[in-house]
Amino acid sequence: MLDETAKGVFTIAVTPFTSDGALDLDSVDRMTDFYLEKGATGLTVLGMMGEAGKLTAEESLSVVKRVVARADVPVVVGVSSPGFASMTALSDSVMEVGAAGVMIAPPGSVRTDDQIVTYYQNAAKAVGDAPWVLQDFPLVTGVQIAPKVILKIVEECPKCVMLKHEDWPGLEKISALRKASDEGARRISILCGNGALFLPEEMARGADGAMTGFAYPEMMAQIVEAANAGDMDRARDIFDAYLPMVRYESQPGLGLAIRKYTLAKRGAIADGALRAPGPKLSAATIAEIEALATRQERALARLG
Amino acid sequence: MLDETAKGVFTIAVTPFTSDGALDLDSVDRMTDFYLEKGATGLTVLGMMGEAGKLTAEESLSVVKRVVARADVPVVVGVSSPGFASMTALSDSVMEVGAAGVMIAPPGSVRTDDQIVTYYQNAAKAVGDAPWVLQDFPLVTGVQIAPKVILKIVEECPKCVMLKHEDWPGLEKISALRKASDEGARRISILCGNGALFLPEEMARGADGAMTGFAYPEMMAQIVEAANAGDMDRARDIFDAYLPMVRYESQPGLGLAIRKYTLAKRGAIADGALRAPGPKLSAATIAEIEALATRQERALARLG
Amino acid sequence: MLDETAKGVFTIAVTPFTSDGALDLDSVDRMTDFYLEKGATGLTVLGMMGEAGKLTAEESLSVVKRVVARADVPVVVGVSSPGFASMTALSDSVMEVGAAGVMIAPPGSVRTDDQIVTYYQNAAKAVGDAPWVLQDFPLVTGVQIAPKVILKIVEECPKCVMLKHEDWPGLEKISALRKASDEGARRISILCGNGALFLPEEMARGADGAMTGFAYPEMMAQIVEAANAGDMDRARDIFDAYLPMVRYESQPGLGLAIRKYTLAKRGAIADGALRAPGPKLSAATIAEIEALATRQERALARLG
Amino acid sequence: MLDETAKGVFTIAVTPFTSDGALDLDSVDRMTDFYLEKGATGLTVLGMMGEAGKLTAEESLSVVKRVVARADVPVVVGVSSPGFASMTALSDSVMEVGAAGVMIAPPGSVRTDDQIVTYYQNAAKAVGDAPWVLQDFPLVTGVQIAPKVILKIVEECPKCVMLKHEDWPGLEKISALRKASDEGARRISILCGNGALFLPEEMARGADGAMTGFAYPEMMAQIVEAANAGDMDRARDIFDAYLPMVRYESQPGLGLAIRKYTLAKRGAIADGALRAPGPKLSAATIAEIEALATRQERALARLG
Repeated sequence: MLDETAKGVFTIAVTPFTSDGALDLDSVDRMTDFYLEKGATGLTVLGMMGEAGKLTAEESLSVVKRVVARADVPVVVGVSSPGFASMTALSDSVMEVGAAGVMIAPPGSVRTDDQIVTYYQNAAKAVGDAPWVLQDFPLVTGVQIAPKVILKIVEECPKCVMLKHEDWPGLEKISALRKASDEGARRISILCGNGALFLPEEMARGADGAMTGFAYPEMMAQIVEAANAGDMDRARDIFDAYLPMVRYESQPGLGLAIRKYTLAKRGAIADGALRAPGPKLSAATIAEIEALATRQERALARLG
Repeated sequence: MLDETAKGVFTIAVTPFTSDGALDLDSVDRMTDFYLEKGATGLTVLGMMGEAGKLTAEESLSVVKRVVARADVPVVVGVSSPGFASMTALSDSVMEVGAAGVMIAPPGSVRTDDQIVTYYQNAAKAVGDAPWVLQDFPLVTGVQIAPKVILKIVEECPKCVMLKHEDWPGLEKISALRKASDEGARRISILCGNGALFLPEEMARGADGAMTGFAYPEMMAQIVEAANAGDMDRARDIFDAYLPMVRYESQPGLGLAIRKYTLAKRGAIADGALRAPGPKLSAATIAEIEALATRQERALARLG
Repeated sequence: MLDETAKGVFTIAVTPFTSDGALDLDSVDRMTDFYLEKGATGLTVLGMMGEAGKLTAEESLSVVKRVVARADVPVVVGVSSPGFASMTALSDSVMEVGAAGVMIAPPGSVRTDDQIVTYYQNAAKAVGDAPWVLQDFPLVTGVQIAPKVILKIVEECPKCVMLKHEDWPGLEKISALRKASDEGARRISILCGNGALFLPEEMARGADGAMTGFAYPEMMAQIVEAANAGDMDRARDIFDAYLPMVRYESQPGLGLAIRKYTLAKRGAIADGALRAPGPKLSAATIAEIEALATRQERALARLG
Repeated sequence: MLDETAKGVFTIAVTPFTSDGALDLDSVDRMTDFYLEKGATGLTVLGMMGEAGKLTAEESLSVVKRVVARADVPVVVGVSSPGFASMTALSDSVMEVGAAGVMIAPPGSVRTDDQIVTYYQNAAKAVGDAPWVLQDFPLVTGVQIAPKVILKIVEECPKCVMLKHEDWPGLEKISALRKASDEGARRISILCGNGALFLPEEMARGADGAMTGFAYPEMMAQIVEAANAGDMDRARDIFDAYLPMVRYESQPGLGLAIRKYTLAKRGAIADGALRAPGPKLSAATIAEIEALATRQERALARLG
């Protein structure tokens, strides 16, 4: 079961499809092995970058089952939904097949501090005994959650054990939350998203690790390890070597296609295709990815 | 099967729930009867105002089956989805159980003229042989579709047989589309939404009727009838009698709860509850609805 | 000077232009007389519907001077600005020429409760001694202000004397604020916008009047008078007679052109033109306005 | 006068203020010298990152005059405005004092292809003889402009001489535009924004340089030079050395404060303060900037 001590790298898993759009469950196994090899301490499935909205309910559950059966680390499942009844149904079914916890983003209609707190109080009831992750991603949800609102939710909802931190800019938010837990608030796990674009700074501010899906997840594992060992310079060296690609993969709309291209090239999945509708990479884009990969290898070789 | 000659009132059906949030299939029957009694020439289910996002896949299909089994008019089903695979799955399953057609809104990510046309070309492939309705609702989708883009879609997609018109302001769009069909473009059905707030003007501009869900759907039927008989003054008299309530029901966020309250009061459904999360009506709001209903009865009595 | 006792109708003034886009100061006089004749107890200039963003700084000030010189009622001036320095400059200059107060909408970047309170504390400093109006218009600003946040601002900022209420739906907000002032909070004036589309209900909930610009401002004056006399039925009768036009004028994007067309027809301004870029009315739209005006006259005649 | 041959780096100038918020014209001189020393081939003032909205009309003009008087390179001035009359007024006044051209972003209300073309045709009339830059920044404006729409504007508006390219992702757009000019369309200058986060790829796709304001503008000059010399590897080496800071400065809301902090530290302006309201940097943020600057120096030293 997921709890407040979670740390390291919860890799956001893609959902692999064949080139004709069928769900590719064999690749789900391969991808799970790949993520674990590259240092995942947990996995997150059916997230925004997992094309969850393009899956039928049966497909969603079959992905969760397959990942849970294969992985020996906690699996978090995205269960955000416009209705609490379907949130309960999805949450119950994934917990039953072995998920370690669920993740909940707020709907765009909750805006004021009290609306946000009330929403999460009710969502907490909807998922019952499942430990859950508060997904704070204002760029996509449109919902700005102040640190004191997060602390109120943490206080009122004992099953809220983790913040998926994806505010931008969001470094001060980590500092504020850690200061509060130093002063007595319950300390929950903070794992950071945003494609790892700020991971060294996030670790230094008090994050416990990353929850994001960059196609070279070993980067996150190594940065977290170095940061935990107190070697921020080493953490930054690793980060800098990967940063040109991190940045290239961060392009909205196109980023997931870039990520899946690389994962396919690395053998983690059979095919890099997105399920339709989704962008296709041009020859020029693929050439840019390859050029960045070549330079990245050189930079890593220099690092040793 | 739905085709370009569709006209009259396609009532947007609510989805009835019991007070504890369970799907109320008995009320689905009652509601279907009610809508037909009040002059519906078609029904639309699983729309935005049908709380479609709060239903599980099985619940969605059971609602469609129940309505189709009960109604002797064409039933249109909303199948908008982030992915074409799930759109195909839902469309196929509802057509198989007897739906007359499906309705598709564009995702917020398509913005330029060509992106919109391409999206609908692909969506048309996704729903195959099913006749479909183009849902044009910029206020919610964020997608502005120019009349010439609609005409291009109509030209390229022979199964597109209806526009659900819900642009605001949108009267000029109806005029532009009708002018184009007078000049040779394929003429499709235009049914108007926006809670009927502009129905008299929409009819005069060339609409074929309404597709919306005001809790007194007999208003739409009577306006369409009067307009088709060329008696715009009668159409406006009816409209004016209901307008204070139409306006009150048009409040975003709260409108559906007001509509369901009235439907429950009129006996169309057993309970006016929305599935959580959803607003609850205060005593003051209920008193306002009742005051409006009383005045509406008086106004209708004066009309005769 | 504006204070908490303000009530009645603060008409939102348009800004008149000649057909070639020049500022028409003669029409400013005529319009001011017209609004006063029709029952304005105050005027609001340089609001969102006053095309304020299309005026140069000199033009803005000349409009304010002209209105202030002509009107014997309090004049409120919109001074919202991305920067406090320019807010101070504009506020000081309009107060110096005789404005009674200023109006401030929040920028879209403030979202959490504390951000909103802090913004208004600083804005209050920026306008110094000027009494000011809190403009609460979430549909346009994107900022949702909870009743308790308004109460906090009222508590901390003694110069905040009025709420321009334009939330939608917003009736419960009026009730919540009035309940709080019954229980001891400082009571400020609440004048309502939204084109008067909910004025009878707003008055019944405790509003002090209207601040909006419908082209028949005598409607607002009569509704407020009837409501204050406790004759809600009379208030609603008047409202219903005008409602078809109120609704037609509420079309976003097009509404101001409709309003100015009517004001020109009624002789309040010389020309209904908007400054470019702005929509032009089609012949069909003009015919619809005229048809509505004719029916409105009949309905008013029936009312007596 | 600005024309289609413009290339290199048009640095987006900040607007310097003293710590109490007064416009600091002495720093305008110093900053102008700094930008020129660091390789600017042009300057852009009163842009979104120049806090233009916080300046009064007189202040705006005084900044333009000061920069034009000091710089021996073309100066582009942002003149976007809700109204064409004020756009004309501002454009005329800045061209009169020596600006080389003006820059125009579309209002959020134009969405369809034809609306965008019509808007720019009218804006072109508004600025008359002034050469102008089409600012394409969908993330902020909400307006998606397809390549074919840009080409149509270029065809119809001979004074449109430059695209400020800030779509994201936007690399394919550069390729499409360059392909079109290879096939006969008029070739305009393309300078890229987005904080230089994609500059190497943008140059390789056919951009003529950068128009952005990173606090180390020598980076842009060196990348453009290396790319023009065909040495993309050198261009990428330079880019990679600065990328950690480029990324850190790209934080929305906070980025400008980070940029001004660095510019003040480098002596380009006397004080890094933003005009209120604006964020202040925490001690932790300043420590992060300093750590990045130290590492950047080391990386540059390695590069030679």
